[in-house]
Amino acid sequence: MNPVKVMFLNPVSTGNYDQFFADMLKAHRYPNTEIHVTSLNPSIGKITNLEYRTYEAIVTADIVRAAYQASQEGFDAMVIGCFYDTALHDAREISGEMVVVAPCQASVQLALTLANTFSVIVGQRKWVHQMQSTVYEYGYGEKLMSFRDVNMNVVEFQQDHECTRSKLIEAGRKAVTEDYAESLILGCTLETGFYKELEAELGVPVIDPSLAVFKAAEHAALLKQGFGWKPSRKWGSGEPPAKELVEFGLFAKPYEFGNRVIVPGG
Amino acid sequence: MNPVKVMFLNPVSTGNYDQFFADMLKAHRYPNTEIHVTSLNPSIGKITNLEYRTYEAIVTADIVRAAYQASQEGFDAMVIGCFYDTALHDAREISGEMVVVAPCQASVQLALTLANTFSVIVGQRKWVHQMQSTVYEYGYGEKLMSFRDVNMNVVEFQQDHECTRSKLIEAGRKAVTEDYAESLILGCTLETGFYKELEAELGVPVIDPSLAVFKAAEHAALLKQGFGWKPSRKWGSGEPPAKELVEFGLFAKPYEFGNRVIVPGG
Amino acid sequence: MNPVKVMFLNPVSTGNYDQFFADMLKAHRYPNTEIHVTSLNPSIGKITNLEYRTYEAIVTADIVRAAYQASQEGFDAMVIGCFYDTALHDAREISGEMVVVAPCQASVQLALTLANTFSVIVGQRKWVHQMQSTVYEYGYGEKLMSFRDVNMNVVEFQQDHECTRSKLIEAGRKAVTEDYAESLILGCTLETGFYKELEAELGVPVIDPSLAVFKAAEHAALLKQGFGWKPSRKWGSGEPPAKELVEFGLFAKPYEFGNRVIVPGG
Amino acid sequence: MNPVKVMFLNPVSTGNYDQFFADMLKAHRYPNTEIHVTSLNPSIGKITNLEYRTYEAIVTADIVRAAYQASQEGFDAMVIGCFYDTALHDAREISGEMVVVAPCQASVQLALTLANTFSVIVGQRKWVHQMQSTVYEYGYGEKLMSFRDVNMNVVEFQQDHECTRSKLIEAGRKAVTEDYAESLILGCTLETGFYKELEAELGVPVIDPSLAVFKAAEHAALLKQGFGWKPSRKWGSGEPPAKELVEFGLFAKPYEFGNRVIVPGG
Amino acid sequence: MNPVKVMFLNPVSTGNYDQFFADMLKAHRYPNTEIHVTSLNPSIGKITNLEYRTYEAIVTADIVRAAYQASQEGFDAMVIGCFYDTALHDAREISGEMVVVAPCQASVQLALTLANTFSVIVGQRKWVHQMQSTVYEYGYGEKLMSFRDVNMNVVEFQQDHECTRSKLIEAGRKAVTEDYAESLILGCTLETGFYKELEAELGVPVIDPSLAVFKAAEHAALLKQGFGWKPSRKWGSGEPPAKELVEFGLFAKPYEFGNRVIVPGG
Amino acid sequence: MNPVKVMFLNPVSTGNYDQFFADMLKAHRYPNTEIHVTSLNPSIGKITNLEYRTYEAIVTADIVRAAYQASQEGFDAMVIGCFYDTALHDAREISGEMVVVAPCQASVQLALTLANTFSVIVGQRKWVHQMQSTVYEYGYGEKLMSFRDVNMNVVEFQQDHECTRSKLIEAGRKAVTEDYAESLILGCTLETGFYKELEAELGVPVIDPSLAVFKAAEHAALLKQGFGWKPSRKWGSGEPPAKELVEFGLFAKPYEFGNRVIVPGG
Repeated sequence: MNPVKVMFLNPVSTGNYDQFFADMLKAHRYPNTEIHVTSLNPSIGKITNLEYRTYEAIVTADIVRAAYQASQEGFDAMVIGCFYDTALHDAREISGEMVVVAPCQASVQLALTLANTFSVIVGQRKWVHQMQSTVYEYGYGEKLMSFRDVNMNVVEFQQDHECTRSKLIEAGRKAVTEDYAESLILGCTLETGFYKELEAELGVPVIDPSLAVFKAAEHAALLKQGFGWKPSRKWGSGEPPAKELVEFGLFAKPYEFGNRVIVPGG
Repeated sequence: MNPVKVMFLNPVSTGNYDQFFADMLKAHRYPNTEIHVTSLNPSIGKITNLEYRTYEAIVTADIVRAAYQASQEGFDAMVIGCFYDTALHDAREISGEMVVVAPCQASVQLALTLANTFSVIVGQRKWVHQMQSTVYEYGYGEKLMSFRDVNMNVVEFQQDHECTRSKLIEAGRKAVTEDYAESLILGCTLETGFYKELEAELGVPVIDPSLAVFKAAEHAALLKQGFGWKPSRKWGSGEPPAKELVEFGLFAKPYEFGNRVIVPGG
Repeated sequence: MNPVKVMFLNPVSTGNYDQFFADMLKAHRYPNTEIHVTSLNPSIGKITNLEYRTYEAIVTADIVRAAYQASQEGFDAMVIGCFYDTALHDAREISGEMVVVAPCQASVQLALTLANTFSVIVGQRKWVHQMQSTVYEYGYGEKLMSFRDVNMNVVEFQQDHECTRSKLIEAGRKAVTEDYAESLILGCTLETGFYKELEAELGVPVIDPSLAVFKAAEHAALLKQGFGWKPSRKWGSGEPPAKELVEFGLFAKPYEFGNRVIVPGG
Repeated sequence: MNPVKVMFLNPVSTGNYDQFFADMLKAHRYPNTEIHVTSLNPSIGKITNLEYRTYEAIVTADIVRAAYQASQEGFDAMVIGCFYDTALHDAREISGEMVVVAPCQASVQLALTLANTFSVIVGQRKWVHQMQSTVYEYGYGEKLMSFRDVNMNVVEFQQDHECTRSKLIEAGRKAVTEDYAESLILGCTLETGFYKELEAELGVPVIDPSLAVFKAAEHAALLKQGFGWKPSRKWGSGEPPAKELVEFGLFAKPYEFGNRVIVPGG
Repeated sequence: MNPVKVMFLNPVSTGNYDQFFADMLKAHRYPNTEIHVTSLNPSIGKITNLEYRTYEAIVTADIVRAAYQASQEGFDAMVIGCFYDTALHDAREISGEMVVVAPCQASVQLALTLANTFSVIVGQRKWVHQMQSTVYEYGYGEKLMSFRDVNMNVVEFQQDHECTRSKLIEAGRKAVTEDYAESLILGCTLETGFYKELEAELGVPVIDPSLAVFKAAEHAALLKQGFGWKPSRKWGSGEPPAKELVEFGLFAKPYEFGNRVIVPGG
Repeated sequence: MNPVKVMFLNPVSTGNYDQFFADMLKAHRYPNTEIHVTSLNPSIGKITNLEYRTYEAIVTADIVRAAYQASQEGFDAMVIGCFYDTALHDAREISGEMVVVAPCQASVQLALTLANTFSVIVGQRKWVHQMQSTVYEYGYGEKLMSFRDVNMNVVEFQQDHECTRSKLIEAGRKAVTEDYAESLILGCTLETGFYKELEAELGVPVIDPSLAVFKAAEHAALLKQGFGWKPSRKWGSGEPPAKELVEFGLFAKPYEFGNRVIVPGG
């Protein structure tokens, strides 16, 4: 098994959850995978969540800068750790030979190898329109049975676990029994840690997006190492000319992550 | 006719074309419209075009900041002056009572009151995938006959007008005769100034996106003034909580545009 | 501001509402706009509404004759005043240099500059299939959250205003809270006059189709005057050969409107 | 075999082709089928073809009146003999217990029992947008490989048979070899009489729309007789209230066909 | 009326319902139609229903063998008697000059000549995903209002008729009143015999799939005889090379149906 | 790294390529993966390829039996080694806790992490309709730029490598330069071994479906082991009742593969 390097970017500018994710991913990585869990430079403001498009807009440039930096550091794959798949296409354009993945795309791809249909359990109704547009853009509209929300915001998910669990199960049950979903996807990287209990309770596959996307990143990294499958740079995937990047003064200095937790390869 | 205020944002960080647009729009505004042509703060780099997603990502935060600022200054409507409709949904979320419009959406809406179908004439093949995705997302996929490119980049359009004209006519002719387009849309705000000659040559309506979107902004501004039609703030259109904006430190200071050309109301 | 001429056609053969609309539009026009509110020749029968396809079929020829006549009289734009957008494509074919607009298309275009999604409040469930087909044909299917009906027919809307208001608010509330609509469109030109109260009550943009389409017509007329943007006459938009019109004996005599209320330009 | 009554309406106001169709259909009917080939009252003008939406609009009211009349005369099924399927939904609304069919829908339904895909060979490029919209509305967009036109108008098809045949074969060959169509549909009721030669030459099923739709009408008539399968009158298929028809003065007098050729039941 | 030969294949390996169908079809055929009701060879197992994809998979080879055999015996058309339209595309490939039809496609085609929309009443929720995929693949997704299930399995439909009737009516009523279906389709060939009572109770057309598809087969057979309209053998409809069939050892021996009930031509 | 068991089923009844695939997969597996390359029992005929639906139909029952058998033997994942993804949904229903994957789905999922669009290079035009339907059903229609065929059948791909390479490059070049594909997928498991040369020649990612699907199977197997993500058994994914399987006499005896090459875990 080749050693590969995966960056898991929490696209917020507080590193509150970086160690939490590092511990979790360490427990689930392949032995040789080096993992860097990073978050963004706080110069953009103190962004703790991306529930609004406004916040996504604020962090977009830094996601792209992070992607460029990670590719320069030789990472094989990078995760953008938000279920909006924020700036995914942008980061893919500038990522050089590094593959970029994101939780919504990765989770749906996985769910559809296990079931014909899925529902997504989100925090707020606010999120639905954008996530639904993303699911449609990926082509999965006919497989999407419903969104169900638990009326919680991002930071609440990891506060009172009993409460979160109970609400996720309630929403998941409605998705299965009323919307006829054959599988469930938890629609926020911070809804992590509950999938097993939901599966036990509801009897359908429940995808944890943080784990699903991390494993998808490892998989992509291994395919890159093993087969040379790297991002296309043709037509719509074409990257900016190096000369213009210099003229524009972009990427002149290394991007300084706000925080970085390193899990060395085994 | 009510006096309205419209901002036309060139979402780049060089003000090279601000006066050019100000003069052009002044010639076409309704008498009482106050126009501010603005561009972005050069602290983000010296961005002269948005041909790549990377560049869009770099300017996205500033477009949102500009939208917030314009809404604070009491503008009725704002144009995001790039045919990618960069950050349109993001800016709409944070624009308060100000309407935000963009050239792709405005141009297609106009074309479809004049014809059943359209083609878009772009600079580079690179642009096509993203613009096509946008057209599809808006719902106009079945009306889109083709993209045709002239193999020019953004800054070349206004350099050798004879060359640009000739290439646009050639591409437009193919769109009409080979792809059966009933109308044409010029797919870059800097393809401005050529539509009349194309119409004369090709015999179909040709939409100039800069003019179309500016008039759409004026129209939206007048509807807002006359009827109170302002952006929804419900569900997916919900705006960030004021408290959180303060906590995150966003919009604490007024956005400083890189450049601003003011055309006072008549 | 250029003087433009707009015809607002009530596509029924009783002129009952012509003065009503003339007064309303006069209050909302741009200063130089000349408005003719017209209705159809009663020789086709005494048609008071178009709730059934049968009635639309009966009036279709006269809508086309009216469009031809209006174009001959030099109108810049014409409204077909029924939310079915009855005979829109037909009228556009024969309208020469005059732009033809209709309430469904105009209202949705407006709603989608203010919100991501919309619902339509109609009179009868009967209307839904046809209107939905129209919305889909225009490409707006994914933005349509629902139709809600108030179980009223067209002529009842303006009889007991209190009753109408109350039913529209009730249906609108369901559309917003149960179907998650971000904006509402009133699906009949005679649902006019209630949008402000619905907005106040429900907190989302509510589009009055009669006002929206009239302003869209003025806008199109001004674009035609200012930029020369006139209907395509290519491919599917091609018009009948003049010679054949003579052979068929069509449009030989001026169309006689059943009623015409003139609001002179200011 | 039950005796059934089928009306084949040529929706033009010259009876030039009524005897032609009567002879052809007589040769292909089931023994007990009574056929009336009719055309419209020339009071609407001397309409010889429906190549333009304008002409369709002119005849729409009379198609509906004809459908109502036919249903009153006890016909089991009616054909609207134009490949635009002009006024099909309108006529179906008012047809009482009579089934209404039309060539585009009937031909595609038949083609798709014989092949996975089809192309349509039309007279003029002008026709394509409307026919394509119809095919899409029916749901057959993914099966449609292409439209190919022969640059002929309707009345020319039956003038120089050798010329017509040669052009249809040439266009059909391109549809099969370049567009990969598995079957062909002739997109005009007057392209009748050539399908066998095209099949022999091109080796794929070729649907004659006049024959296909007539047999579909007979089939529908027999199903109605045998099983009672009659048009829905629910929701969008609801018919106008009898009281309102009286008030509007519609259908007060029997419709007078311009011409009627009767083929008595065997 | 030409004599035609139609095979109605019950694609199970018990002949329990063959005589039942033979009697029913005999009562509804055209006078000269020879009908063979067949079922599959029990060597594949004792398959009494196809409610699961697994069972469909088990019988697929035999359906294809049956189709080949029927074509060799000179049948004009064959029905695959399961509403999943099991192996329809496969059987069509190898059927030579014989047309193959199936209940889902035939029933929807019929319903859409009588109504704008339909719902399907099925036995189990299990069936829905596959049937919905089929309806979408045929292109009828926008016309499908809902599936409603009665929580019965296939063999129960013909056991307690009163119970079946009552449940079908209850589900059908919900489809009409809650899902706004304009017509109903019974989604299993063994839901046969109830359509008249549902129509009487619910007031909308109700399609019996067994009867609809049998008449569609007769219709196709008569078109084949009368006009030579046979299956395409081009591109995706191309059949296997005879030489390869021999090499593979396929169709070397006549297929032995498990049961065959013959209704001779009149 | 957990030891997992993956079966790679060549769904033909000659074992000609089993050793070939075993050697190739061995070179690319993770160290602990046990691989069984299998083919079907020749009692169904001597099937060497699945280019026709007829052949797929013949092998469908055995694919399902193989899937059941593999799940009984404790395999974690199984590959159905044909780019038609033959019987994928069927096998998934009966696979118990084993995940089933197939090359078309796996290859497109991979391509879309590396590029926005793809084209598929197939052997024969015959294949296109079915594969396109599959791509559409999966939801990837808008990402599919084209199919290009090399006019070769399955068994020829591995005969004259120089010829195959040259034809694949020629077709791939057209897909990239004329159809604007950003990536390529080789549309047959026997097009294996050429992807690196195509990548070198054409400069875009080229997916080898045999390798892509095998790695997808390993990935799925590892996710199953590590996270318990197993197939849904709810609604449309519901499996047949054990009691009925016994009554039908299905799966009573272990399935006897025609051939089995075992690569033991490292």
